[in-house]
Amino acid sequence: MGCPMPELWLIGIGTGNPAHVTLEAQAALREAALVMVPRKGPDKADLAELRHRILADSGSSAPVAEFDMPVRDESLPYAERVTRWHDEITCIWAETIDAAQPQGPIALMVWGDPGLYDSTLRIAARLAPRPRLRVVPGITALQALTAAHAIPFNTVNGAVTVTTGRRLRDHGWPKGAETVAVMLDGECSFQHLPPKGLHIWWGGFLGMAEQVLDAGPLAEAGPRIVASRAEARARHGWIMDTYLLRRDRP
Amino acid sequence: MGCPMPELWLIGIGTGNPAHVTLEAQAALREAALVMVPRKGPDKADLAELRHRILADSGSSAPVAEFDMPVRDESLPYAERVTRWHDEITCIWAETIDAAQPQGPIALMVWGDPGLYDSTLRIAARLAPRPRLRVVPGITALQALTAAHAIPFNTVNGAVTVTTGRRLRDHGWPKGAETVAVMLDGECSFQHLPPKGLHIWWGGFLGMAEQVLDAGPLAEAGPRIVASRAEARARHGWIMDTYLLRRDRP
Repeated sequence: MGCPMPELWLIGIGTGNPAHVTLEAQAALREAALVMVPRKGPDKADLAELRHRILADSGSSAPVAEFDMPVRDESLPYAERVTRWHDEITCIWAETIDAAQPQGPIALMVWGDPGLYDSTLRIAARLAPRPRLRVVPGITALQALTAAHAIPFNTVNGAVTVTTGRRLRDHGWPKGAETVAVMLDGECSFQHLPPKGLHIWWGGFLGMAEQVLDAGPLAEAGPRIVASRAEARARHGWIMDTYLLRRDRP
Repeated sequence: MGCPMPELWLIGIGTGNPAHVTLEAQAALREAALVMVPRKGPDKADLAELRHRILADSGSSAPVAEFDMPVRDESLPYAERVTRWHDEITCIWAETIDAAQPQGPIALMVWGDPGLYDSTLRIAARLAPRPRLRVVPGITALQALTAAHAIPFNTVNGAVTVTTGRRLRDHGWPKGAETVAVMLDGECSFQHLPPKGLHIWWGGFLGMAEQVLDAGPLAEAGPRIVASRAEARARHGWIMDTYLLRRDRP
C-alpha cells in the first residue's frame, strides 16, 4: 500500500434501522475518499442492501469499492478459525485499497458500534503500514434491545455483565451478577441456566421492520423464544438476536 | 393529567457532541407535540444550551416547556435521597404537562442513552396515569470513550463488567472480571484498586470540544488522571468522565 497509508475510519451505523445512523456517521461517509463495502453473501442480502441505502441517505458521493468476505473454515478450532479469517480479511482490504489508491480517508461501515463484539478494529490493527484510525460510535444491539422493551440496562447503582453465548454455556451464570447481557449467541444459551428467579428480555432483528420481541420469567419465556427464534430464522434465512437476563431481587 | 395520558418519548441524544444525535432522535423531536427541557442550573449552562441547539438542529417546531430540576438533599442517605429526588421530578413533570396540555407525544431529551445509568425511565414509571413509553437509543459515554481511544470494549469472546464508582469503592475489582467499565464516578475510584497489571483508558467531556483523554498502565496514568480531572473540573465548574480498566493477560 502507498505511503503514507490513508486514515481508516470505522463508522458505526446501528443495528439495521437506517434511522439509527448519527449525524457524525453521515458526515464521515460524505468526507471519505473511498467507502469499502463487503459484497453481499448469499443469505444476508437485505443487510448488504441496507448498507447501500445508508450510504445513499448520507449524501455521500465517495467512490465505493466492493470486496468479497472470505468464508470461515468451520473445521478449525475457534481461536485459529478467527485468526485465519482476520488474516484473510486484512489481505483483501489491502488489495482493495491498493487497487483504488484513495487520496484521503477510507471508510468502513460497521453494524452496531465498532467497539462492541466486532472484529473490525482487530483486523485494522493487522494492516501494514498501520493506518491512523478514527472510530465513529454507533447504536448497539444492546441499546436497541433496552429501548424496544423500554427497560433500563442496569438497576439503580447496579452492575451489568456483558458476555457472550459461548461464555454463558461454558461458565454458567457469572458469579455474583445481577444483570447479564448476552451477545453473539447463536444457540439460545440461556437454556443452560437454571431458570428460577431469572427474567429475560429478548429481541431479534432489533430496530428493523422484522423486529421480534419477547420477555418474561425465563422458565416461561425461554421455550417461547427458542421457538420464535427458530421460526424467524427459517423465514429470513438468518437472524441476529440478543438478550438481557436479570435476577429477581429477593 | 388528562386522560388518556399522552405518550412519553425518552430520546437519547449522545454525550454532548451534537453530531452524536441519530436520525431517529431528530425525527422524534420533530414529531413531538411538546418538548420538556430542564432549565439551566448554575453550573452546567453549556449543557442546557446544547439541548436547545440539538432541538434547533432537528428542525423541530414543537412548543418547549422548561422546568426547574429540584435539588438533591445531600443530607439524606443515598437510597432515600434518590427516591425523594425522583418523586419531586415526577411532580414537576406532571405540573408541566398539566399546564401545557399537549395533544400528542411529549419528548424528553436524555444525555447518552435512556437505558444506561439514567433515572428518566424510573421517573417516568412513577407518573400516574402511567404513559405509554417510547425510548430512542443514543450514543453513550462508554461508546464515546472506546471510540475516542479506538479500542474495543471487550477482548475476543471476553466479558465486560459495567459498574459504578460507588460499587468499585465498596466491593473492589469485580470477581473474575477481565474488563471493567466504570460509570457515575465522581471520585476517581480506581485509586482504591491495587494498580498492578491493570491498564486504564479514561475520558472526560467525551465527544465535546473540551474532551480530555488519557491512557496507560494504571500505576502511571492514575495519578495523571486525578490531576487532569481536578484541573478540568476547576476550569469548567463541572466534569463528566468515564473509564475502562483491563487486566493484562498473563
